Amino acid sequence: MSKTSTGNFFEDIRVGQLIKHATPRTISVGDVALYNGLFGPRFAVQSSDAFAQAIGYPRAPVDDLLVFHVVFGKTVPDISLNAVANLGYAACRFLAPVYPGDTLNAVSEVIGLKENSSRKTGIAFVRSTGLKQDGSKVLEYVRWVMLRKRDEGAPAPADHVPRLQEAVLPSMLGDACPTIDVGAYDFTLAGSPHRFGDYAVGEKIDHVDGVTVEEAEHMIATRLYQNTARIHFNQFVEAKGRFGRRLIYGGHVISLARALSFNGLGNAFHIAAINGGRHVSPLFAGTTVFAWSDVLAKADVPGRDDVGALRLRTVAAKDHPCSDFPLKSGSEDDPSVLLDLDYWALMPK
Amino acid sequence: MSKTSTGNFFEDIRVGQLIKHATPRTISVGDVALYNGLFGPRFAVQSSDAFAQAIGYPRAPVDDLLVFHVVFGKTVPDISLNAVANLGYAACRFLAPVYPGDTLNAVSEVIGLKENSSRKTGIAFVRSTGLKQDGSKVLEYVRWVMLRKRDEGAPAPADHVPRLQEAVLPSMLGDACPTIDVGAYDFTLAGSPHRFGDYAVGEKIDHVDGVTVEEAEHMIATRLYQNTARIHFNQFVEAKGRFGRRLIYGGHVISLARALSFNGLGNAFHIAAINGGRHVSPLFAGTTVFAWSDVLAKADVPGRDDVGALRLRTVAAKDHPCSDFPLKSGSEDDPSVLLDLDYWALMPK
Amino acid sequence: MSKTSTGNFFEDIRVGQLIKHATPRTISVGDVALYNGLFGPRFAVQSSDAFAQAIGYPRAPVDDLLVFHVVFGKTVPDISLNAVANLGYAACRFLAPVYPGDTLNAVSEVIGLKENSSRKTGIAFVRSTGLKQDGSKVLEYVRWVMLRKRDEGAPAPADHVPRLQEAVLPSMLGDACPTIDVGAYDFTLAGSPHRFGDYAVGEKIDHVDGVTVEEAEHMIATRLYQNTARIHFNQFVEAKGRFGRRLIYGGHVISLARALSFNGLGNAFHIAAINGGRHVSPLFAGTTVFAWSDVLAKADVPGRDDVGALRLRTVAAKDHPCSDFPLKSGSEDDPSVLLDLDYWALMPK
Repeated sequence: MSKTSTGNFFEDIRVGQLIKHATPRTISVGDVALYNGLFGPRFAVQSSDAFAQAIGYPRAPVDDLLVFHVVFGKTVPDISLNAVANLGYAACRFLAPVYPGDTLNAVSEVIGLKENSSRKTGIAFVRSTGLKQDGSKVLEYVRWVMLRKRDEGAPAPADHVPRLQEAVLPSMLGDACPTIDVGAYDFTLAGSPHRFGDYAVGEKIDHVDGVTVEEAEHMIATRLYQNTARIHFNQFVEAKGRFGRRLIYGGHVISLARALSFNGLGNAFHIAAINGGRHVSPLFAGTTVFAWSDVLAKADVPGRDDVGALRLRTVAAKDHPCSDFPLKSGSEDDPSVLLDLDYWALMPK
Repeated sequence: MSKTSTGNFFEDIRVGQLIKHATPRTISVGDVALYNGLFGPRFAVQSSDAFAQAIGYPRAPVDDLLVFHVVFGKTVPDISLNAVANLGYAACRFLAPVYPGDTLNAVSEVIGLKENSSRKTGIAFVRSTGLKQDGSKVLEYVRWVMLRKRDEGAPAPADHVPRLQEAVLPSMLGDACPTIDVGAYDFTLAGSPHRFGDYAVGEKIDHVDGVTVEEAEHMIATRLYQNTARIHFNQFVEAKGRFGRRLIYGGHVISLARALSFNGLGNAFHIAAINGGRHVSPLFAGTTVFAWSDVLAKADVPGRDDVGALRLRTVAAKDHPCSDFPLKSGSEDDPSVLLDLDYWALMPK
Repeated sequence: MSKTSTGNFFEDIRVGQLIKHATPRTISVGDVALYNGLFGPRFAVQSSDAFAQAIGYPRAPVDDLLVFHVVFGKTVPDISLNAVANLGYAACRFLAPVYPGDTLNAVSEVIGLKENSSRKTGIAFVRSTGLKQDGSKVLEYVRWVMLRKRDEGAPAPADHVPRLQEAVLPSMLGDACPTIDVGAYDFTLAGSPHRFGDYAVGEKIDHVDGVTVEEAEHMIATRLYQNTARIHFNQFVEAKGRFGRRLIYGGHVISLARALSFNGLGNAFHIAAINGGRHVSPLFAGTTVFAWSDVLAKADVPGRDDVGALRLRTVAAKDHPCSDFPLKSGSEDDPSVLLDLDYWALMPK
């Protein structure tokens, strides 16, 4: 019996299948520091224990996206080692704050399968859940990936495509954010005077800055999450592959765009949910990433008057400053677009 | 109203103006580890809790330069986002030790302004102070930067050039260094037998080793400090700029030179003050940095017999081993010189 | 008297000489995080405090190889600054677990010397010991290095070549691994179902994955260990040297191979001893490292029924996937081979 894992192929999984993923991971202030060095986020709540404590957290929480990447990384060996493409995310909710010292695990349920007409590949829909060591949930999300079949002739299960809500409901936001004392939230220290009420639906914000990505950076980040997808690390193999080079983990683009978005969204301190996201084109080292955001909607969070929720569409583009708000969707087709992310962020009222 | 910050231009600031900077930052052992990985300092006091405790610290203090860079980084969005050049530092004093867990903030006062004859730029003199979460000071320094004007025709304030002392007085050193138990200071463990008394004024020390800098390294370091100066990160824009490439944060050179200086100054464990410093030429990735030091002066610290102060001039050069002690000042003009730094370091007596 | 150290040359050392090395180093969760980002290990015991506690550790121990590299790094300024080559390791035993917060020191004893016939170099055999702050041992190993002579005409001491055991005895394994509760060891969470009993002597395992190395990565790692060997850092000098470029620290290859070996050896959670190791060829940035392992032997650890010891030969190769199990030894001569490492790893029974 082979001791190495080749990962699951499309025909290996079934709707309803439950998967408990390896590897449990204790998040430390060391992970936080390395994440800071790799992305440079400046949201005060995650940056400062003193700031976080002043508004009601026990200490600075771990960046939401670091939590996401660690949970996501655990699912790779079982879900996406044989993926052709990571097609999308939906219904992602942050359910509890994570602090240094917490240990994260992940489980997944297969919620849909659909063979492609080529019969060479199929799409798997998976709901993954991140858990703390005590079993409490910190994160859940759905993603769908295109998987290779091991054997084209293998029979495929009946198609089962799950219904996913177009967006997370405002009533389901905020579980990972304690009630904050807005009076103690120092907007000068936070680096922006703009509150929830200052943003308008339809407002577009160019985040101005750009950041060039190096091979060492994305590989260090992706290993930090224990994400083992081979395409990110192995130049010897990728040199002969589809792109001729290592493909950067899509989550790297999300973290870069989020850090850039501080310039314009400085008080959008918590990602409460990700409604959907597409990696529109691949990112490679040497490219400079820019980003802009559109305020899609605003919502009160039921029962809370401390924070409101901005529904944001943040778009990242490569080698293309975003003052012209590039898009690749519908009738617009800018080939520089890397990422199109739709999420809810909380902001003090 | 734009949600993004474009930074201050020369005509936006006034003498006497006080600026409270974002973003508060809790320093952790993670930051210390990443700083160690990026620079490789070997001073025993900062490297070992046990060593630090033996001589009188509660635990290993955070490297002085990491504190400096974090405080400096906070001032960038308000002070130097539109800087043409960072011209110099003076009157920098370390006022209290910083330990992992401390949160740092920064405030600045504009202490001088002088428009340049071109009327396109002006020089701003700023005193910045680093503070802990309890309001106690850990660091203060003056720097002056050449800022662009937004509008050449804008009226300039009257010239006001502050008087700065040529060097910090010995009586003002040592606040960030508790009284140490020299008897418990293990010179073998520290890696050098040389005490304060072993150094002579005029002694020149070639630090021998050289270190090549990579793009990923300086960007990770500069983001760790939340320094947002665009010229360090954005190859897309810099490709068309003055140098054609990303300029490395000047503080990176200071940290490299300080780490190299261990070979020859192994017991100069604490930078007590920086009298002045100039970034003589720019550093780019791919270059190898060397350094040498000159003992400019020696001083007792009033009231203390545990440590003495060496006034050091440390010079860094690129692609130029420093056995010939290169300089760029006065009649000497070696184009390899990167940095000319004048500071006080404490050493056991 | 020169303040800088030039390191020891062959004629500077004597059999029986004891050397206490600088620099004491407190290991933190920050070091662990950076090690994780650089290598991506996935062994659950080191990754998760919760997992480690469940089986009997007080918390997640520091990766064995991080401990090795830190101790090794301390010996460099005294032992191998003038080394032509690091020839081999033997008799390496891990003697106690190391946890974040522990401070490591190192001492060495010269146990053998042999001048080469050229009289330009000689081989030094050194036993080095890593110690915690309380003086307890955490690691010991022997290595031999080829050192330059400062002066070819200097008289050499009489040859003295120590006898080294071919392998560490099973009765000397396990000191750094507390008795574990195998019933609480969750093989699903750990990422592999294979226990000690599932492996057979002679079994060969291709670890499948490959990882490309960048200059920034190996320099950050090697500085993290405070390893000062110049050949790793100084492109200006190495451009004119033997290889024309920076040579990667041999220990970097060991850590890469160990991380790759998770795929196939997921429960071999602790390196108990290294019987021997050779750096067969040099590694440079830009190369992709692969690895495979051979089960050389299996042994019970006297007095323990929780874990068994696998004697493994792990071979790393560059730009050469290891499905053909390349070797460079005896009659086999594959030039891609980088490392040939023989060690004992513990695995739950």
